[in-house]
Amino acid sequence: MINKNTKIYGVIGDPVEHSLSPVLHKFFFKKFDINALYFAFRIEAKRLQNAIDGMRAFGVSGLNVTTPHKENVTSFVDSRSSEVKLMGAANTLKNENDGISAYGTDPAGFIESLGVFGDRFTDAHVVLLGAGGSARAIAFALARLSVGQLTLVNRTLTRARQLATITRETFGIHHIETVMLSDPYLNDAIAEASIVINATTVGMFPNTTAAIINNFAAFSNRHFVYDLIYNPATSLFLSRAREKGATIQNGLDMLIFQGLQSQRIWLDRSLELDQDSLTQLRQALMLELGI
Amino acid sequence: MINKNTKIYGVIGDPVEHSLSPVLHKFFFKKFDINALYFAFRIEAKRLQNAIDGMRAFGVSGLNVTTPHKENVTSFVDSRSSEVKLMGAANTLKNENDGISAYGTDPAGFIESLGVFGDRFTDAHVVLLGAGGSARAIAFALARLSVGQLTLVNRTLTRARQLATITRETFGIHHIETVMLSDPYLNDAIAEASIVINATTVGMFPNTTAAIINNFAAFSNRHFVYDLIYNPATSLFLSRAREKGATIQNGLDMLIFQGLQSQRIWLDRSLELDQDSLTQLRQALMLELGI
Repeated sequence: MINKNTKIYGVIGDPVEHSLSPVLHKFFFKKFDINALYFAFRIEAKRLQNAIDGMRAFGVSGLNVTTPHKENVTSFVDSRSSEVKLMGAANTLKNENDGISAYGTDPAGFIESLGVFGDRFTDAHVVLLGAGGSARAIAFALARLSVGQLTLVNRTLTRARQLATITRETFGIHHIETVMLSDPYLNDAIAEASIVINATTVGMFPNTTAAIINNFAAFSNRHFVYDLIYNPATSLFLSRAREKGATIQNGLDMLIFQGLQSQRIWLDRSLELDQDSLTQLRQALMLELGI
Repeated sequence: MINKNTKIYGVIGDPVEHSLSPVLHKFFFKKFDINALYFAFRIEAKRLQNAIDGMRAFGVSGLNVTTPHKENVTSFVDSRSSEVKLMGAANTLKNENDGISAYGTDPAGFIESLGVFGDRFTDAHVVLLGAGGSARAIAFALARLSVGQLTLVNRTLTRARQLATITRETFGIHHIETVMLSDPYLNDAIAEASIVINATTVGMFPNTTAAIINNFAAFSNRHFVYDLIYNPATSLFLSRAREKGATIQNGLDMLIFQGLQSQRIWLDRSLELDQDSLTQLRQALMLELGI
């Protein structure tokens, strides 16, 4: 029931009409019995500051932030969590008495999504594909997971080297190498590693016949292979790794748990999803995606 | 049902928690089958511009504007109706493709609230008590109603004279006099007039034992007496005028019809309230007021 106590939340981005955040957060608000509404607001880049000032003026309780605002939004808030300071990007804003605070929930969402597989990361050699904002969040999470060695792979080395510098100097992973996607050495790195993660958008709907790498010879049943893509549910990248015996996981649970982490921040409560709710939520999201 | 097509409307003011606008407009949206939500947003004066920019950024479809923003808001919008230009105040904002437009619906609301009594205003001598924003809207409406003569009454003459100047030069009523509330001549003016309107807040809840004037000797069954106050439903001013035989009307229907006029602007449709809906809405508002 909408009344004077109903709080307003939403996601800002451009485009935003295909965002799953409304389905996700409406599910959470219902599950946790919170009197709140959640909207998708398309905000053009030139109006981002207006939106943040409007959030203040209208008393919007919280916002998720998606492309293209994750970096720029950090300039317009009053305080930043340690994650945001380290990553230079935010995906969650909370309107508090003393101003708007920015948080980044992707690293925590990635870690929580791993479940029992999280143990495999300690001291592991991880190959991370991509050097954009998602790869940065994953690199941050990998530092938290105390991985032993990181191979950063990108089409061009420049961005990979930038991420390597941040990961070494700011996140604190010291054993890092950068490899071009076209470099035959990549196969050796994959063969030596036990975890491979795709943090690029290659293979995402509607380009489902593409994969970030073509040669899967080095994959084996020793590998845990993770793709941040969740549409399609099994990307060509995951499907080919699975053919080689790898254990695979898509990005749907990361989406869910980064959202749960936003809820924890907004509601200032420790919230847990039981297995039934998780299953139900996965189904609701897949239904929305039509996958 | 809230979905991607749900439009957001609201009222901005400070304070705003006792505003009847949410009850009023939710009734209209339901009645006219509009997929829209309506919120009361408390906006501090220093954040008014942020709120208007936020309206733009978030795509809020429409806002009502109440104290203390009715005048200041006109600076932050992209276009102003002729009423707003003439009155220097607005109570309705519409977010259109080409920007935010400001409208003033109080004059139309007053006129529509008169119903059959509207005819009494042509060439009539009207005594108007007050010189603030409400009195200005009524003076504007009186010009539209082609009244013959206007007596403007206020505690201090300065503001009455300011309003007289605007009313004469901008609204176009030429036969105007200004009278101090304490001037014994006020009784002569009332005796000569056929319509007396209170546009001050004197007598409004919780100060229900006050009336803007004390001497009702000049009132008679020839008078139509209107009080913009609707809480209490019968102010002491109306009650004492009624004792002298006057026909009385409170401000509830003006509240309703200024809101209906906002709806017409927002929805760009000619909307009418049937008698049953009007009765139902009056009851809903009185219930909310506890009167």
